[in-house]
Amino acid sequence: MPYVNIKVTDEGVTNEQKRQLIEGTTQLLVNVLNKDPATTHVVIDVVPTDNWGVFGQQLTKIRKRQT
Amino acid sequence: MPYVNIKVTDEGVTNEQKRQLIEGTTQLLVNVLNKDPATTHVVIDVVPTDNWGVFGQQLTKIRKRQT
Amino acid sequence: MPYVNIKVTDEGVTNEQKRQLIEGTTQLLVNVLNKDPATTHVVIDVVPTDNWGVFGQQLTKIRKRQT
Amino acid sequence: MPYVNIKVTDEGVTNEQKRQLIEGTTQLLVNVLNKDPATTHVVIDVVPTDNWGVFGQQLTKIRKRQT
Amino acid sequence: MPYVNIKVTDEGVTNEQKRQLIEGTTQLLVNVLNKDPATTHVVIDVVPTDNWGVFGQQLTKIRKRQT
Amino acid sequence: MPYVNIKVTDEGVTNEQKRQLIEGTTQLLVNVLNKDPATTHVVIDVVPTDNWGVFGQQLTKIRKRQT
Repeated sequence: MPYVNIKVTDEGVTNEQKRQLIEGTTQLLVNVLNKDPATTHVVIDVVPTDNWGVFGQQLTKIRKRQT
Repeated sequence: MPYVNIKVTDEGVTNEQKRQLIEGTTQLLVNVLNKDPATTHVVIDVVPTDNWGVFGQQLTKIRKRQT
Repeated sequence: MPYVNIKVTDEGVTNEQKRQLIEGTTQLLVNVLNKDPATTHVVIDVVPTDNWGVFGQQLTKIRKRQT
Repeated sequence: MPYVNIKVTDEGVTNEQKRQLIEGTTQLLVNVLNKDPATTHVVIDVVPTDNWGVFGQQLTKIRKRQT
Repeated sequence: MPYVNIKVTDEGVTNEQKRQLIEGTTQLLVNVLNKDPATTHVVIDVVPTDNWGVFGQQLTKIRKRQT
Repeated sequence: MPYVNIKVTDEGVTNEQKRQLIEGTTQLLVNVLNKDPATTHVVIDVVPTDNWGVFGQQLTKIRKRQT
């Protein structure tokens, strides 16, 4: 009965990448804990970079400096 | 002081249904645990079906097969 | 495919009360959104009153003043 | 290694306010727990008032009555 | 900057299994989204079966019936 | 109506530090967003270092190497 929540920043995550995250996470829980895929739920939250902070700064600002 | 987070898929949840979820959840916590409605918070997250996985697949794909 | 997380304070929640919260929440999602109980997951977190704050204070302190 | 999730209602939160929340939360964790800002993550979720309930009612309705 | 929260039931998860979940989840985010492992955080919550409900019932009860 | 969840590792967080986190977070939301402390909830989760991963490793292992 696992539930997995994946939070990533909104920097061009494609539908195919979401598919791979869901498939890979489910497979991992099957392999490691022998969980049933039918009861393994994965929810992906895509967070705007204005709303994600690290180093005490918005990621939007950090990304600008990196480029 | 309860806090309840309800995650449902984005499949046509109406405002009236949100109202009922909030009213019903609060009433349940009052009935079962004698909580004060004034401090009972309910937050509903509506998740795109592309972002919800079960059986290792995106719900969008599962829904297509079901119809 | 709903997922519900209920956070309540650790103030003597019994196993029977947990049972009622799980049953009642699931029934609510069936009634309001026509969800399948087989894919409706409810997770209850019981939080120590030292770790829950409101009014800028730990609930432990607030409870002492109330008694 | 702290992770902080701040949920606020969608009532005109500006980008500057988000910046202050991220900066202030990070500084608090540095001051109180001596955490490294490089590993302190803050995620802000802005929730529509239709999706936030208290007193068993949607905040949208409560706000209307207050004005 | 991903953050992943894995919730599993308290049914004998070993430390080695936790290690594999953390390693596997991080590797998945590196492979699929090219994320930096240094900023990829994984938090595992182990939930008592009394506190996890599905089918409107506590998992403890469901497990008893299955054996 | 803010709700804040702070997740920190279980490395000797004292009750006084929890008090300061709750007080400081609430004050921040009052200052930045003019929120009412009466409806500002803060929940602290203390996570075992075996259950927190970064760099694809359990924090327990990383801490051992650092000392």
